[in-house]
Amino acid sequence: MQGQNQQQAYDRGITIFSPDGRLYQVEYAREAVKRGTASIGVRTSDGVVLAVDKRIRSPLMERSSVEKIHKADDHIGIASAGHVADARQLIDFARRQAQVNQLRYGEPVGVETLTKEITDYIQQYTQVGGARPFGVALIIGGIVDGEPRLYETDPSGTPYEWKALAVGADRGDIRDYLEANYDAEMDLDAGIDLALAALASVNDDELAPEGIGVATIDAETETFGVLSDDEKETHLAEADLLESDDGDEDGDEAEDADDETEE
Amino acid sequence: MQGQNQQQAYDRGITIFSPDGRLYQVEYAREAVKRGTASIGVRTSDGVVLAVDKRIRSPLMERSSVEKIHKADDHIGIASAGHVADARQLIDFARRQAQVNQLRYGEPVGVETLTKEITDYIQQYTQVGGARPFGVALIIGGIVDGEPRLYETDPSGTPYEWKALAVGADRGDIRDYLEANYDAEMDLDAGIDLALAALASVNDDELAPEGIGVATIDAETETFGVLSDDEKETHLAEADLLESDDGDEDGDEAEDADDETEE
Amino acid sequence: MQGQNQQQAYDRGITIFSPDGRLYQVEYAREAVKRGTASIGVRTSDGVVLAVDKRIRSPLMERSSVEKIHKADDHIGIASAGHVADARQLIDFARRQAQVNQLRYGEPVGVETLTKEITDYIQQYTQVGGARPFGVALIIGGIVDGEPRLYETDPSGTPYEWKALAVGADRGDIRDYLEANYDAEMDLDAGIDLALAALASVNDDELAPEGIGVATIDAETETFGVLSDDEKETHLAEADLLESDDGDEDGDEAEDADDETEE
Amino acid sequence: MQGQNQQQAYDRGITIFSPDGRLYQVEYAREAVKRGTASIGVRTSDGVVLAVDKRIRSPLMERSSVEKIHKADDHIGIASAGHVADARQLIDFARRQAQVNQLRYGEPVGVETLTKEITDYIQQYTQVGGARPFGVALIIGGIVDGEPRLYETDPSGTPYEWKALAVGADRGDIRDYLEANYDAEMDLDAGIDLALAALASVNDDELAPEGIGVATIDAETETFGVLSDDEKETHLAEADLLESDDGDEDGDEAEDADDETEE
Amino acid sequence: MQGQNQQQAYDRGITIFSPDGRLYQVEYAREAVKRGTASIGVRTSDGVVLAVDKRIRSPLMERSSVEKIHKADDHIGIASAGHVADARQLIDFARRQAQVNQLRYGEPVGVETLTKEITDYIQQYTQVGGARPFGVALIIGGIVDGEPRLYETDPSGTPYEWKALAVGADRGDIRDYLEANYDAEMDLDAGIDLALAALASVNDDELAPEGIGVATIDAETETFGVLSDDEKETHLAEADLLESDDGDEDGDEAEDADDETEE
Amino acid sequence: MQGQNQQQAYDRGITIFSPDGRLYQVEYAREAVKRGTASIGVRTSDGVVLAVDKRIRSPLMERSSVEKIHKADDHIGIASAGHVADARQLIDFARRQAQVNQLRYGEPVGVETLTKEITDYIQQYTQVGGARPFGVALIIGGIVDGEPRLYETDPSGTPYEWKALAVGADRGDIRDYLEANYDAEMDLDAGIDLALAALASVNDDELAPEGIGVATIDAETETFGVLSDDEKETHLAEADLLESDDGDEDGDEAEDADDETEE
Amino acid sequence: MQGQNQQQAYDRGITIFSPDGRLYQVEYAREAVKRGTASIGVRTSDGVVLAVDKRIRSPLMERSSVEKIHKADDHIGIASAGHVADARQLIDFARRQAQVNQLRYGEPVGVETLTKEITDYIQQYTQVGGARPFGVALIIGGIVDGEPRLYETDPSGTPYEWKALAVGADRGDIRDYLEANYDAEMDLDAGIDLALAALASVNDDELAPEGIGVATIDAETETFGVLSDDEKETHLAEADLLESDDGDEDGDEAEDADDETEE
Repeated sequence: MQGQNQQQAYDRGITIFSPDGRLYQVEYAREAVKRGTASIGVRTSDGVVLAVDKRIRSPLMERSSVEKIHKADDHIGIASAGHVADARQLIDFARRQAQVNQLRYGEPVGVETLTKEITDYIQQYTQVGGARPFGVALIIGGIVDGEPRLYETDPSGTPYEWKALAVGADRGDIRDYLEANYDAEMDLDAGIDLALAALASVNDDELAPEGIGVATIDAETETFGVLSDDEKETHLAEADLLESDDGDEDGDEAEDADDETEE
Repeated sequence: MQGQNQQQAYDRGITIFSPDGRLYQVEYAREAVKRGTASIGVRTSDGVVLAVDKRIRSPLMERSSVEKIHKADDHIGIASAGHVADARQLIDFARRQAQVNQLRYGEPVGVETLTKEITDYIQQYTQVGGARPFGVALIIGGIVDGEPRLYETDPSGTPYEWKALAVGADRGDIRDYLEANYDAEMDLDAGIDLALAALASVNDDELAPEGIGVATIDAETETFGVLSDDEKETHLAEADLLESDDGDEDGDEAEDADDETEE
Repeated sequence: MQGQNQQQAYDRGITIFSPDGRLYQVEYAREAVKRGTASIGVRTSDGVVLAVDKRIRSPLMERSSVEKIHKADDHIGIASAGHVADARQLIDFARRQAQVNQLRYGEPVGVETLTKEITDYIQQYTQVGGARPFGVALIIGGIVDGEPRLYETDPSGTPYEWKALAVGADRGDIRDYLEANYDAEMDLDAGIDLALAALASVNDDELAPEGIGVATIDAETETFGVLSDDEKETHLAEADLLESDDGDEDGDEAEDADDETEE
Repeated sequence: MQGQNQQQAYDRGITIFSPDGRLYQVEYAREAVKRGTASIGVRTSDGVVLAVDKRIRSPLMERSSVEKIHKADDHIGIASAGHVADARQLIDFARRQAQVNQLRYGEPVGVETLTKEITDYIQQYTQVGGARPFGVALIIGGIVDGEPRLYETDPSGTPYEWKALAVGADRGDIRDYLEANYDAEMDLDAGIDLALAALASVNDDELAPEGIGVATIDAETETFGVLSDDEKETHLAEADLLESDDGDEDGDEAEDADDETEE
Repeated sequence: MQGQNQQQAYDRGITIFSPDGRLYQVEYAREAVKRGTASIGVRTSDGVVLAVDKRIRSPLMERSSVEKIHKADDHIGIASAGHVADARQLIDFARRQAQVNQLRYGEPVGVETLTKEITDYIQQYTQVGGARPFGVALIIGGIVDGEPRLYETDPSGTPYEWKALAVGADRGDIRDYLEANYDAEMDLDAGIDLALAALASVNDDELAPEGIGVATIDAETETFGVLSDDEKETHLAEADLLESDDGDEDGDEAEDADDETEE
Repeated sequence: MQGQNQQQAYDRGITIFSPDGRLYQVEYAREAVKRGTASIGVRTSDGVVLAVDKRIRSPLMERSSVEKIHKADDHIGIASAGHVADARQLIDFARRQAQVNQLRYGEPVGVETLTKEITDYIQQYTQVGGARPFGVALIIGGIVDGEPRLYETDPSGTPYEWKALAVGADRGDIRDYLEANYDAEMDLDAGIDLALAALASVNDDELAPEGIGVATIDAETETFGVLSDDEKETHLAEADLLESDDGDEDGDEAEDADDETEE
Repeated sequence: MQGQNQQQAYDRGITIFSPDGRLYQVEYAREAVKRGTASIGVRTSDGVVLAVDKRIRSPLMERSSVEKIHKADDHIGIASAGHVADARQLIDFARRQAQVNQLRYGEPVGVETLTKEITDYIQQYTQVGGARPFGVALIIGGIVDGEPRLYETDPSGTPYEWKALAVGADRGDIRDYLEANYDAEMDLDAGIDLALAALASVNDDELAPEGIGVATIDAETETFGVLSDDEKETHLAEADLLESDDGDEDGDEAEDADDETEE
């Protein structure tokens, strides 16, 4: 690979190809995703699980305002990682598209359809000048004809379908955990346990209920739902992942107290 | 992190990603916020308190013209820190949005709704070329269904909800004070005392009534109100924070007499 | 502060933030204001005084064509300092806004309202690309409901209200003089004397009637008026500020005979 | 050829000519194509074969979401190599053009007509400023009046017609194999065998059914169809190309686990 | 002042402020004015005199085609110095504005009104991007209510009123001459003599009738008129400024035979 | 001439003049033409001959897809050399213009008229910003009132009329051959022989029928026609230019197997 | 003057002023004119003569396609020098303007009027961004009310009127010849002889009839006409300027065989 000077040349031209065929601005946008805390998606036999790290910068901040899990439609949930303000734009876009689909065709939008509408929108920001790419990755989970589906969108505008995946910080380690422990036959409860264990695997195997967010999209009811703190605590306790009381709840939050870009 | 030369490369392209996934123009806009004097928000059980440092450059300047607390709607107040002219644009936007909501839905706009409309507006200035980000942070306080709510918008366009927060100069120190002394059960009066004490903590524990601005949004009446100098003096005296008479009122104001960008 | 090279980087991008949160083009526009001769505003108990330095480059130039005091509406006057051609644009904008207000609401525009419409207009030139900021500061004086009001607009688009102020060359020294001698209870005549003395304080305590411009906006009649040379001479003579006859009238004008940018 | 420094000069201007008459951005877009896994097209006497390498980054990723073969119309299939998000835009364009042709002329679009509409679209992105070229090559196969036709589009917007071709990684080696083994008289089944053998020739002569995609457009029925895993396995077994069981299915996938741009 | 390198930085950004508040492109446009031959305006008690240097590059060039004095309206004449093609644009603009005024208000346009419409037009080219400033200065002379008026427009878009002035080459020396010899009571004939003597003062005190242009706007008749060669010769002879016959008429014209930008 | 560094400066500004009055981007576009294989035009007494080198990169590529001779109208043919995708745009433009002429005036477009419409179109891309010049040269042959006419368009947008010409690779050598052997009285058959001999003169005096394209526009019938392989072989055999059997048909094609920009 | 580096800075900004008030792009466009072969205009007592050098690159090129003399209207002819494709645009503009004038006012356009419409058009390309100046100079000859008139337009957009002039290569030497030999009383025949002799003076005092173009606009008939080769030969023979037979007709044409930009 080339040195520092050359990279700069390709940055200024927003999104043009480098001599080896890469789009640096898109790759840098992926770095912005890695700066965000991790989000996880797991597809089970009877629904999809979304789990996110909701670490906050101060005990005075409301955890509920750390938006990392969003309801896009009754049957579709989205978890994000990366630049929060960018994520909001894509979520808004997703919700509008879901409504438009409902109005136009009289039925809920398909998860794959919605994913591709989002990635097409993302792609425009990587090819046409005058704007930068979106610095965010989305995990889109939903139910189509009773079947759970799980997708990822990345800053290049490529859609991927997954059985289970992680985006954001520690993505590689979490994926290793998921690959080693994923079982396609597990039910939603087991999926929640897997997602929490995967998230805990990069957090000293301990999680506080308030520090995470978990949502499910149930295949039978085809509805999106968020777990309460009690439900999360029950799951953590059962899996022996519950943060011990003497732990400093906001210990690692204080470290990046002044770096407010990412969650 | 990389050296000075590289940073420059990313500045010129307005708001493009750096190799490590950062948006320098947004980070520099945050520096513009820090150049502004501090603003504080405190959520109490029966309302929200906004308190601001209104230091002026000359005794001949009218303190009332230092606009740092604004009424956005009957039930919503906004405090700002950073680039004053930018703040005015966002306040105007907020007021128009509040009116549009009232007209369209026949009811007052929600505090969270308004906050997110503002952050979406801010985000556009960080992604689409041809303009710079807004160099201002807002503290938005208001009442929804009798419940006090307190939000922050930052230059990236991210909304946060807080129990209590500070933006602008000395933000870190003031937050430490708030974290150490915040009590969710306190009433508005105690909230005013906390805000003033936090502000005084970075001003030699002394404040002059004319040098600060304080507003409340009362949960019961759902109305925004500004404290008079007498009311402020009473609070300061009770809290033993009142500036002693021999103090040089505009002492630290003379220092930056020629730096007119920020308040 | 950083060195010369870095500053250049931020200039080219018109109005983007520097790493320490500054907008260099706006700060340079302030330098353009300082290159202009001084203008002074004084608010008294019964009206507002505007006084300007009208030095010219040659005795053949008509002093009346050095436009530094402008009537914006019957009850509002504006003094300017800085880039003359830019000032003309803002004055034209102010006059149009005053007329629009009169037509739309059937009453004269408020001084604060007009000031903020002007600053909003100025702010646009500091955030949106494709143009440079206005290199001019305005002093806006007027009467609202019988009350004298005095405002300043700066190149960032920030409005300030003042009891008395100076913009342009020697701004700091003149302000010191005003701070030391201002009395809120004085009447218009005393206000004229103060303004002239402040202007003379940076001109060897001597002024020629033709070399200055003075206007008042009377609180009772709510009308803008310009002082004649005789009136100015009377005031100067009474205050012992009248230029002695052996003085070289255009002495310091010859110096900058070829620097035509500013007045 | 010139050195590195000069190349950079031509990159920044998006798509301008170099002194030796080259368009570097178009050439770099060709590099983006080479970064993609290989796709192959073979024209036989009774139809067209499309075969693609569908390697994935993780066993948790759904192979079906690696979109490299697309149905553009009943009688036209398209295989792609290169930047996935860009490919999606061209496929969408192709589908819309096919529908427009059907509506306007009442008959299916010709394969050559569609190819040239796509290449004209691609060419615009290489001449007009404000955007980058498409980083993708397409293989377009279809039937016109019972005759199989096979085309290629490259990032410059040039259409080529082929008997058999490869695009993407290892393009040169696969073409050598095709040139040595192509027989214009072979039928579809033989064409599938040739395509698979060519693909295997750069993969240690082994392929797993799930790791490849195969589609045919039959000349008689004029319809596009995708082979099932069983059908692929049968073909591979017959040709002795079936991956042995002890093979590490995702062996070479793990290598580029973090390079997500291309498939 | 700063060195050469820094100046370059400000040139590229068309018209942005330098750190010391200057607009270099406007200053360079003033240099373009200085590259043009001199033009002079003199206001007398009964009219305005315009006199210009009409040096040509070759005896084969028609002196009449060197346009430096223009009739803008019956009662208004304009002399220019600097970039000839730019001057033509402003003259055309002036003529259109004069016609528009006549049509709209049923009376001839005022000289000051016209001057300010021109300067507003000029200013736009110094603030909004995408164009360069006008490289020309105008001397606008005319009669309003029987009163002679004389104005200047410069490349910044600032209007000035003068008793007598010069623009273009040798401006400083000619102004010195005018300042020393101007008498506000003189009549048109004396004004012509003064203008010619001032022009001759920088040309070895000799002028050829064909090498100059002279026009007057008479206060009584309010009409613009151009002097014939005979009339010019009479004036020159009376003032002993007539070029001696052995003089090389085009002596100094040959020098800049290939520099065709300015007149 | 100046060095490498300076040339770069003029490239970036798309199509601006260099200090010596050249347009580098246009000159580089001419280099793009030279990178294309040769095309030849010959005007004879009873028609026009177009002959092109159709070398291909692989025996698997369909020679018919190498588009270098195009029918623009019944009586007009066009041969191209250079950037293939650009040529397609100009051919499309030519066809549309021919149709528009037919519709508007009820008669076929003149060859000179069409040529000039094309060159005007090309010129726009060399003067107005936001796009690059066309990297292609066209040979336009046709019949007007029974008279054969032969034109060239180059990347600057200049039209030339020729008796016989070559564009593309080896242009100079082929022109030398044409100049030495052209006879204005020859008929179409002799013209074909001349064109083939000229093309063979830079190919070891051997050509394969499949490796070339030949078309004629007959003056009597005023129709464009393409020669079959048999017709081409007959001409080659008669002229002793037919490639011997032991020749490596694609010998020099393999060399540039990976350089796909030009034909 | 400054060095090479500084010049580059001003080139990139298209047409902005240099510190000494020059527009480099306009000056470089003048260099493009000098790269073109010479064109000459001579005004006589009974008409205007236009004479041009029509050197061609190859004997196979049709001299008639070297367009350097154009009929703009029945009574107006135009000769050009410089960038041929640019000249075509201006000639087209001139013809349209002539038609528009005829339609609007019912009489032929004046020569000066047309010249100024062309120069206004040219000027726009030197002030507004997004395009380069025209690299061409025009000689415009015509008859107005029986009087011959002769004008020049240069790349800055300045109109000049001449008795006789040259543009393009060797302009200086040809002008010297014209200045030494011009006689305002000569008739058209003498004017032709002067123009040819002037052109021959920089061509070894020899010219071939085919290598030049001559046109006249007769004052009596007010019509434009082109001289035949016979007429040209007669004139050359009479003036002893006819090229001797042993001369190498295309001798100096071969030299620039590959430099196709200019004629």
